[in-house]
Amino acid sequence: MSGIYSAPTSLELHRKQFPALENKAYFNFGGQGTLPRASLEAIQQAYEYVQQYGPFSGKINDWIDKEVKQTRAALASELAAPVETITFTENVTAGCNIALWGIDWQAGDHLLLSDCEHPGIIATAQEIGRRFEVDISTCPIFATLNQGDPTAVIAQHLQPRTRLVVLSHILWNTGQVLPLAEIIEACRNYSQGTQVIRVLVDAAQSVGSLPLNLTQLGADFYAFTGHKWLCGPEGIGGLYVKPEAFSSLSPTFIGWRSVIKDARDKPIGWKPDGKRFEVATSAFPIYPGLRAAIATHQQWGSAQERYQQICQLSEYLWGGLSELTTVRCLATSPQKSGLVSFVLTNGGSHQQLVESLEQKGFMLRTLLDPDCVRACVHYFTTKAEIDQLIKALQD
Amino acid sequence: MSGIYSAPTSLELHRKQFPALENKAYFNFGGQGTLPRASLEAIQQAYEYVQQYGPFSGKINDWIDKEVKQTRAALASELAAPVETITFTENVTAGCNIALWGIDWQAGDHLLLSDCEHPGIIATAQEIGRRFEVDISTCPIFATLNQGDPTAVIAQHLQPRTRLVVLSHILWNTGQVLPLAEIIEACRNYSQGTQVIRVLVDAAQSVGSLPLNLTQLGADFYAFTGHKWLCGPEGIGGLYVKPEAFSSLSPTFIGWRSVIKDARDKPIGWKPDGKRFEVATSAFPIYPGLRAAIATHQQWGSAQERYQQICQLSEYLWGGLSELTTVRCLATSPQKSGLVSFVLTNGGSHQQLVESLEQKGFMLRTLLDPDCVRACVHYFTTKAEIDQLIKALQD
Repeated sequence: MSGIYSAPTSLELHRKQFPALENKAYFNFGGQGTLPRASLEAIQQAYEYVQQYGPFSGKINDWIDKEVKQTRAALASELAAPVETITFTENVTAGCNIALWGIDWQAGDHLLLSDCEHPGIIATAQEIGRRFEVDISTCPIFATLNQGDPTAVIAQHLQPRTRLVVLSHILWNTGQVLPLAEIIEACRNYSQGTQVIRVLVDAAQSVGSLPLNLTQLGADFYAFTGHKWLCGPEGIGGLYVKPEAFSSLSPTFIGWRSVIKDARDKPIGWKPDGKRFEVATSAFPIYPGLRAAIATHQQWGSAQERYQQICQLSEYLWGGLSELTTVRCLATSPQKSGLVSFVLTNGGSHQQLVESLEQKGFMLRTLLDPDCVRACVHYFTTKAEIDQLIKALQD
Repeated sequence: MSGIYSAPTSLELHRKQFPALENKAYFNFGGQGTLPRASLEAIQQAYEYVQQYGPFSGKINDWIDKEVKQTRAALASELAAPVETITFTENVTAGCNIALWGIDWQAGDHLLLSDCEHPGIIATAQEIGRRFEVDISTCPIFATLNQGDPTAVIAQHLQPRTRLVVLSHILWNTGQVLPLAEIIEACRNYSQGTQVIRVLVDAAQSVGSLPLNLTQLGADFYAFTGHKWLCGPEGIGGLYVKPEAFSSLSPTFIGWRSVIKDARDKPIGWKPDGKRFEVATSAFPIYPGLRAAIATHQQWGSAQERYQQICQLSEYLWGGLSELTTVRCLATSPQKSGLVSFVLTNGGSHQQLVESLEQKGFMLRTLLDPDCVRACVHYFTTKAEIDQLIKALQD
């Protein structure tokens, strides 16, 4: 239009691929990520393809096999894990349930939870406790946000009958990244000579934000979703099961996807890989939507590059918030994740604040334990958005 | 164009709402129904709406609540059941798993299956048997297709320790409609004075084809899907739990949708209704797609009118097949369902036949127990399509 035209930056161009970013300042990636336009289009095309050549036909059954296979490979590649270790689930919680119910619990066994787990996981553990007379206890990880050693806390709470430790890789309420490799080693050391202590990780906040190598990490069970930091569609997630832990886990919810069958279609055994924990028909047209989201991120940069950007932006947000008198961050130093939680210093209602911010085009959320507000930054969040949020919180 | 123009019939107009019907003769409704264009559009609009106002925000959380509520009401209305009795699931099999795993099994209990159940359900029952030392047995219902009394067969196989009978309302392999009300009464009569015998129904082939009043029918657990005879999107189904059976069933796979929470977000009990068996985030944008499919059918006629049409067309197909020398129907009389199974009389390969038919634009499927081909008609199948199929099978 005029001489002051400036070319869009590569970040501006990249952001244009996410329709949700057009009309708001979005800070809820820990709730749900913004779906790229390529995912929306892939989903729409998949629905149309299924109707054109099926919906139920030899050609579409082949298409489903191919889509599931390709999506499993894309997830396995993201997680640096063999494809055989990946199970598709509807969401993170379903993956946690597969691990929790698949263990051969004996009365008197012990299950240890961190005190920062999601209510659905706590409820599942409690029901496991009731049904199998398993002892459930919680250890104080929340208090290690600003001082203390989470590994030591967990190690102190292990018991001779502990069979499973359940914790999150990144705590959804404070953004703290737990030293998972160290915790896994502490569990392994404790259980030498006695029964194995397995570790189930709620990876809701880590997959799509942390660079991951699950093969090296050593977690037994790692449950994740595609619709948060990976920015895929809601309704598809997964569970990684470590090869060495595979035979210790029995399928619970079971369907045609779980089993191998004889010539008369009768089940005669489990699939030899992660498919044994899958059940039946899913929303298969959304699978290519998840792959398109993963590809969109890879076009921007490596997992390591994206994570560095998340950490820088998170520190920038934490720094800005720390200069305000109206709010106080829960963490006294920036965390190595995209989640930043804070409270109002005047004792005002966090719910009212979040509603008021949403009216102004800022999307954040409240949490209840602790009572706080959470803002999330992704690698494609802009400093301008953060500046605007800081300004809105100042007023 | 000319004087010989004839106006499209109402059925022709109705069929134009299903893109999948445009380029083929479709006989796989028992595998997956043809999605109406209104469903495709509702799904696409929902994805766009979520990105415009969220994806995670107060407004979108309200939208999800409303969509889930309206879809639950639509299903409850189709099934003549209170909304509180309906749980959303990903598919039929997941609904069966909720019922199978939710029972307080004791070693020595007995579970009775019909011999026409889906392999995924058989595998689940076998795993229940292994984990809880429950006795699993099967009764010969397949043989009652042309003579015999399914109710008598089931009654003969009940045992003092029988706690659950698992059967399909319409058998997926033969299309036989079981006299469910009578079977439920036989179970109730048997269990008088002893423990209650619950009945779990695999309703994969009945919901969307049979007119249903679950309140009158009396089944304890009725698991169904939206993507077969209801012609909704794949990935959404449900489970009906009879109010009197509700307290007998514990949630197994559990998440934030299952629980009520205190002011600190900690789980303190189950939701008072069918939500207690739901887990966590689903592909919510497909929910309005299911409602649009249900509405499309209702525009054409009542459930009774649609079923009458299905039965007439099924009889027409059975009659046409019965006149051929190349094939033989499994049933010696037309069944009161849309499923018609047949075998080649020359011993040829059913798989090759189905593949060859698919090349010619006819979508059917094989089954392995018994080894046969299955053709399904819906209320909007045309006699012309059936005639063409008969002709193709004659050649």
